[in-house]
Amino acid sequence: MTYFSPMGLEDFLNMHKEAIDAALKDFLSEKLTQGSEISPVIRDLLKNLEEYNLRGGKRMRPVLVLAGYMAAGNEINDDIIRASIAPELMHNYFLAHDDIMDRGEMRRGKPSLHKIYEKLAQKNRWSDTEHFGESFGIMGGDFLWSWGVEAILGAGFSEERTIAAVQKYAELNEMTGQGQALDVWTSKLAISKVKEKDLLKIHKYKTAHYTVEGPLHLGAILGGATPQDLAVLTAYALPLGLAFQLQDDLLGVFGESDKTGKSNLDDLREGKRTLLVIEAYKRAKPAGRKYLDKYVGNPHLTQSQADRIRSIIEETGSRAYSEKKRDELAQQAIVTVDNSHFGADVKGILIETAKYLTKRNK
Amino acid sequence: MTYFSPMGLEDFLNMHKEAIDAALKDFLSEKLTQGSEISPVIRDLLKNLEEYNLRGGKRMRPVLVLAGYMAAGNEINDDIIRASIAPELMHNYFLAHDDIMDRGEMRRGKPSLHKIYEKLAQKNRWSDTEHFGESFGIMGGDFLWSWGVEAILGAGFSEERTIAAVQKYAELNEMTGQGQALDVWTSKLAISKVKEKDLLKIHKYKTAHYTVEGPLHLGAILGGATPQDLAVLTAYALPLGLAFQLQDDLLGVFGESDKTGKSNLDDLREGKRTLLVIEAYKRAKPAGRKYLDKYVGNPHLTQSQADRIRSIIEETGSRAYSEKKRDELAQQAIVTVDNSHFGADVKGILIETAKYLTKRNK
Repeated sequence: MTYFSPMGLEDFLNMHKEAIDAALKDFLSEKLTQGSEISPVIRDLLKNLEEYNLRGGKRMRPVLVLAGYMAAGNEINDDIIRASIAPELMHNYFLAHDDIMDRGEMRRGKPSLHKIYEKLAQKNRWSDTEHFGESFGIMGGDFLWSWGVEAILGAGFSEERTIAAVQKYAELNEMTGQGQALDVWTSKLAISKVKEKDLLKIHKYKTAHYTVEGPLHLGAILGGATPQDLAVLTAYALPLGLAFQLQDDLLGVFGESDKTGKSNLDDLREGKRTLLVIEAYKRAKPAGRKYLDKYVGNPHLTQSQADRIRSIIEETGSRAYSEKKRDELAQQAIVTVDNSHFGADVKGILIETAKYLTKRNK
Repeated sequence: MTYFSPMGLEDFLNMHKEAIDAALKDFLSEKLTQGSEISPVIRDLLKNLEEYNLRGGKRMRPVLVLAGYMAAGNEINDDIIRASIAPELMHNYFLAHDDIMDRGEMRRGKPSLHKIYEKLAQKNRWSDTEHFGESFGIMGGDFLWSWGVEAILGAGFSEERTIAAVQKYAELNEMTGQGQALDVWTSKLAISKVKEKDLLKIHKYKTAHYTVEGPLHLGAILGGATPQDLAVLTAYALPLGLAFQLQDDLLGVFGESDKTGKSNLDDLREGKRTLLVIEAYKRAKPAGRKYLDKYVGNPHLTQSQADRIRSIIEETGSRAYSEKKRDELAQQAIVTVDNSHFGADVKGILIETAKYLTKRNK
């Protein structure tokens, strides 16, 4: 195998991001046209969903669909671009629902979906505005899963591959739901009760499957992948998905809000059980443990109380521990791909992606 | 066409309900087996979902799938029984989410899904129990939509028909979401602002499509229906779906809780805009209007205040108006089928179904 001039991620992104965005825009704009006739309320909801889906976002999952398609030996075409938006729509469905559960007020620098409707209800001077907002957040998310299914159905692949991809999409929903249930449940347990292996299981189910493995498999399945292709993609995707989540948790506490688009207080206020928090707890002195028990999960946490928590995470070496684990997992993903049967272009993209996802600041 | 001995609904139900229940049980029990390995939290969630899906329920949607399949010229077999549970799972997904939005505490005589988890959190002495319950209600519902997709994918039909059925399933989700959004929005408007045609639009989108037309079409599509078959089923299903909803609204206010499985205060407390309420308002004297404005939508409404509202609905003739409209719509459905090209058995089932759905007391 020759290794000359592998295509880097940036080239790959530049080549395809515009097409992905156009496909997403087309899809959403057709939905808006169809639904607007029903009523102004539906038109406005669809407009909000259009804005919500198009705001920022790294389009990482669509790009991974394309990479999976290439890994199965294909060149990028319009069909796979159209299908690639499916996991993006699924992602936004999860975000709409997760932001209700986690009480996330901001998403990509703007109000989360349920907050848009809470504010609207406030403006209309209606009662029970929080509940109204949450109702629209639930419904908005519910729209998006079926749009993802339709994106696959309408992409133009053979019936056999289309069915296999829809099956995968359904499985991703289930695994992610299992991870989310574990996550919500675990946030109620005392920090001292949560073990690293429990957290890594949550990350695997809640994040790694639908964020990395799923999009790669969707592309690969639609591209007629061999079992060997799929196995390598899994061996690459699962450690990378964990690394991605560890970086997400690092950004959730140490990130800059203007880059991440969400407050770096959210995770701590919601009491999210992260490797950062449980490892800090394990290593901290009694006073530090007491502080973590008291303030992690306090919905009124101030920035200065958060700073104290950040210091504990830093000084115990827990931050460095998470960073090291993140890097090791990313490296594991990279080595897997490097030793695989994939061609140089595919290797280049997957390796760059692993680096990008674990070093990102947003 | 000979009209001897058309099969009645009761015979049809007796013949197939057991098989439908067995298919649903098998499906849920396989999910429980698969998911239990992940963690006790997931095992318990899947057990709760199993109980939630199996408790009572009329299995009306699966029966309509079978009727649609017969209408397309087929005899009932195991494949269509397996597929028939898809709209039942979809229905329970909608119920789980709707019960959060409508603050429904009971469902089929037992706590609604989010209430199960709220109670569990209370038992564990956790904080923020209502929010925790709602989170599990959202997630629980999210599982069920993809199980419906998998029920179709795994039923054993040709690839072409399977894809068409999944497409229909996705469309049903979208239309129902549109109806639900209109419903939630409309519950915030003054009673005097809501017109009959707005309500009928909500009923069409929120109820008629996924409750009657959708299951019939799913069965018909999987059975290789002609466009003519589908057109007759639509012409039957949409008026019947409206009649079904009018009966649902009648039961919501005048029903007996021990039969319906939910409180007959819920709709009034939630301020649901029903034909009963808006027509009573239109016909009421100023004192009656004032009472409706004040108490419909009051979350603390007492049974005696509800009785006063019931009297207004009764005395203005609004109850009789809803009943008359319900009967006319059901009759329209019956005439459509009676004049159709369907065989005697199919006619018998569809006509009995129309009668049953609009006269039911639960």
